[in-house]
Amino acid sequence: MSRRMLLGAFVFHPGGAHVTGWRQPTSRPAEHLSIKHFRHFAQTAERGVFDTIFLADGLYFWDRYPSGVDHYGALRPEPFTLLSALSQVTEHIGLAATVSTTYNEPYHVARTLASLDHLSRGRAAWNLVTSRYDEEAKNFGGDSHLDHTRRYERGREFVDVVNGLLDSWDDDAIVADAESGIFADREKLHTLNHRGEFFDVRGPLNIARPPQGHPVLFQAGGSESGLELAAATADAVFARGGSLADSQAFYADLKARTERAGRDRDRLSILPSVMPVVGETREAARAEAEAILALTPDALILEAVSHTIGQDLAGRSADERFDYARDFDTSNETRSRSAVLDRLIAEGSATAREVYAWSFAQNTLTGTAADIADHLEERFENGAADGFVVQFPHLPGGIDAFVDDVIPELQRRGLTRTSYEEATLRERFGLERPARITA
Amino acid sequence: MSRRMLLGAFVFHPGGAHVTGWRQPTSRPAEHLSIKHFRHFAQTAERGVFDTIFLADGLYFWDRYPSGVDHYGALRPEPFTLLSALSQVTEHIGLAATVSTTYNEPYHVARTLASLDHLSRGRAAWNLVTSRYDEEAKNFGGDSHLDHTRRYERGREFVDVVNGLLDSWDDDAIVADAESGIFADREKLHTLNHRGEFFDVRGPLNIARPPQGHPVLFQAGGSESGLELAAATADAVFARGGSLADSQAFYADLKARTERAGRDRDRLSILPSVMPVVGETREAARAEAEAILALTPDALILEAVSHTIGQDLAGRSADERFDYARDFDTSNETRSRSAVLDRLIAEGSATAREVYAWSFAQNTLTGTAADIADHLEERFENGAADGFVVQFPHLPGGIDAFVDDVIPELQRRGLTRTSYEEATLRERFGLERPARITA
Repeated sequence: MSRRMLLGAFVFHPGGAHVTGWRQPTSRPAEHLSIKHFRHFAQTAERGVFDTIFLADGLYFWDRYPSGVDHYGALRPEPFTLLSALSQVTEHIGLAATVSTTYNEPYHVARTLASLDHLSRGRAAWNLVTSRYDEEAKNFGGDSHLDHTRRYERGREFVDVVNGLLDSWDDDAIVADAESGIFADREKLHTLNHRGEFFDVRGPLNIARPPQGHPVLFQAGGSESGLELAAATADAVFARGGSLADSQAFYADLKARTERAGRDRDRLSILPSVMPVVGETREAARAEAEAILALTPDALILEAVSHTIGQDLAGRSADERFDYARDFDTSNETRSRSAVLDRLIAEGSATAREVYAWSFAQNTLTGTAADIADHLEERFENGAADGFVVQFPHLPGGIDAFVDDVIPELQRRGLTRTSYEEATLRERFGLERPARITA
Repeated sequence: MSRRMLLGAFVFHPGGAHVTGWRQPTSRPAEHLSIKHFRHFAQTAERGVFDTIFLADGLYFWDRYPSGVDHYGALRPEPFTLLSALSQVTEHIGLAATVSTTYNEPYHVARTLASLDHLSRGRAAWNLVTSRYDEEAKNFGGDSHLDHTRRYERGREFVDVVNGLLDSWDDDAIVADAESGIFADREKLHTLNHRGEFFDVRGPLNIARPPQGHPVLFQAGGSESGLELAAATADAVFARGGSLADSQAFYADLKARTERAGRDRDRLSILPSVMPVVGETREAARAEAEAILALTPDALILEAVSHTIGQDLAGRSADERFDYARDFDTSNETRSRSAVLDRLIAEGSATAREVYAWSFAQNTLTGTAADIADHLEERFENGAADGFVVQFPHLPGGIDAFVDDVIPELQRRGLTRTSYEEATLRERFGLERPARITA
């Protein structure tokens, strides 16, 4: 089979990636914590032959600003609990959960991953994040989050411990021979005895090596530490979207880092994020995008922009023009640099509503099914992507439209699969089942 | 409806409660980590109208003795992952997971419980344990386990934090009004801000209050600290089996403690453990029990008895007679006092095979369906039990036999339900949905 586009179906909030997606006419917010809602999502993604579903997560409720409570549809089930339930109402699709390596213990995570992998027959994946909010630290006994570099050092050791625990038992260690009474071959059991900077973990794990050996490992970090960790350990990277040139540069850089880390460049798949807004015509798509934006309350716009620029706009109007360079302390280093911030710095002045609309436009891809397929194909064929993590501004409308309209177009072009063939998610990512790591 | 027996269906190991249950002719050890095996278990329990399934757990693999690896079928999926999958292949039965309060964080546990409760529409339960093995400590950065009293102090605070987090949102806090754009009522959000001896947890939880409010809380500890914790916080206690008089004494004591803790005695259900071995005749049942024992290798017998008596019998024969009082240091306080140990102390001398057989007989209830129903009825009607946690020496044979033979007998006597009526597990336990706890 020729190279084909890998596709992940992303859930940010149950109502979709846009914070007020829950207000859309097709949304059913009363069902956002029920299996019915997510079953429809997963089964629709499977109908579209997506490779995996992919659940965002955070270990906090975003109450820093009042709009987070008033308007933001940000409640969600715990990802592994949800994916395990979904494993029983789907047959083929991958099941990827976001996991914080800062606020978890590797023994629990290795067990849970192995359990999901056994129960789903080889469909488990995890997306390593290091958790950056003080709100998260405060739910786990801390007052503020660990330093960025330390978080990634911990993440690196976390991956080693998880993989070591997953390798506690050789693939053929469990004999279970009723006749002789031998359950396991003692020579094929490996006690990890890990003693590291962040973790002391003896092992062995109390579950057999899972079908995939090591469940597929995603990462998303774009920082220097994040890229180095991904190059050394990840199977796939969930990357920021952007211009073709930016995506090509990111792709080339990360593939080169992967080679420098001593790994095959094809071993790591790079999947930029896209958030399509599909319409039968371009006008219809634009109208849909405007309708999504129009349902964003001003208070939320002001507080979201306050957060992006690292300054409090409370009490201002969403239509008041502010001068970025003049009004604010631009030396604030806690903000993560974004295309929106770049543009604001370049433009000099803007209203909060304009900034929010730029940000939305920056993160969405609005057009017909053919326009969207063109965009994806261009990146896929020109060294910018091995596939995509598709976000939906609202659910279930967003994934319904994508699977009904865009997927058939991608399939007609021979870019995406039309049926599931491989048995496990790793195989679908073109990865061998890893041999046990021996120290 | 008159008072009726509560029933839990227990999974100790996937192969059953006896460590070599996996060797039985009906066992399929190659399927012990697959959904197929547990789906059959859960659906059979539901066919028998059990109130809940109940999963044991441990955060270690028992490799202290070689027999733990060689003969012991002790690999298992992580309980919440398994229960969440089972929530989609069952309709009514409760889903109880064992949770260590020593090696978990309350924020994770509260989220996972709430998620399972939402996805199962009110069927989640947890069984609080404090983890007593050094093998567990060593998987979480420690060298040896916390002192017993400290573990229970931590457990008590853990319950308070979990309940506080579950109460982050009032039941009617989530408005999700598409028209106005109001997602949640800010006045009905409660930030926990817990600062305690073991935990600092800010909250709020990022999931709505679950259908049961607080999922059903089981406890199993029989120590002074364990009983006091149960009296103060538990909805149900999984108790040791024993003679009628012992069970009555335990029942009366724990109900009195519950009243002293300021709670209604009917608020706490006491469910002793029973492990039936059923036969069409008493002879058939005895033959079945002997067949289970006969498949226990001598090495496992010697090491299990070594562990019970706290002394190493390695190199002895299972048929060699030893003198307990003469040969061993009986001052060893790390052993937990058991009926078997009591008997050994009283008898003075025994072989390891005899000790193992006593222990097995002590923990099993061998007879016809009528004998077993008589035993359960006697305890239920005479102040010794509100129901039972039923263990099965091997699976799936043990639960198949119980549901086919014993359940119809209990139903004929009007002791157990014949269909599910209440919507949630709490209701089945006769418990109100708790109001939010206000500080």
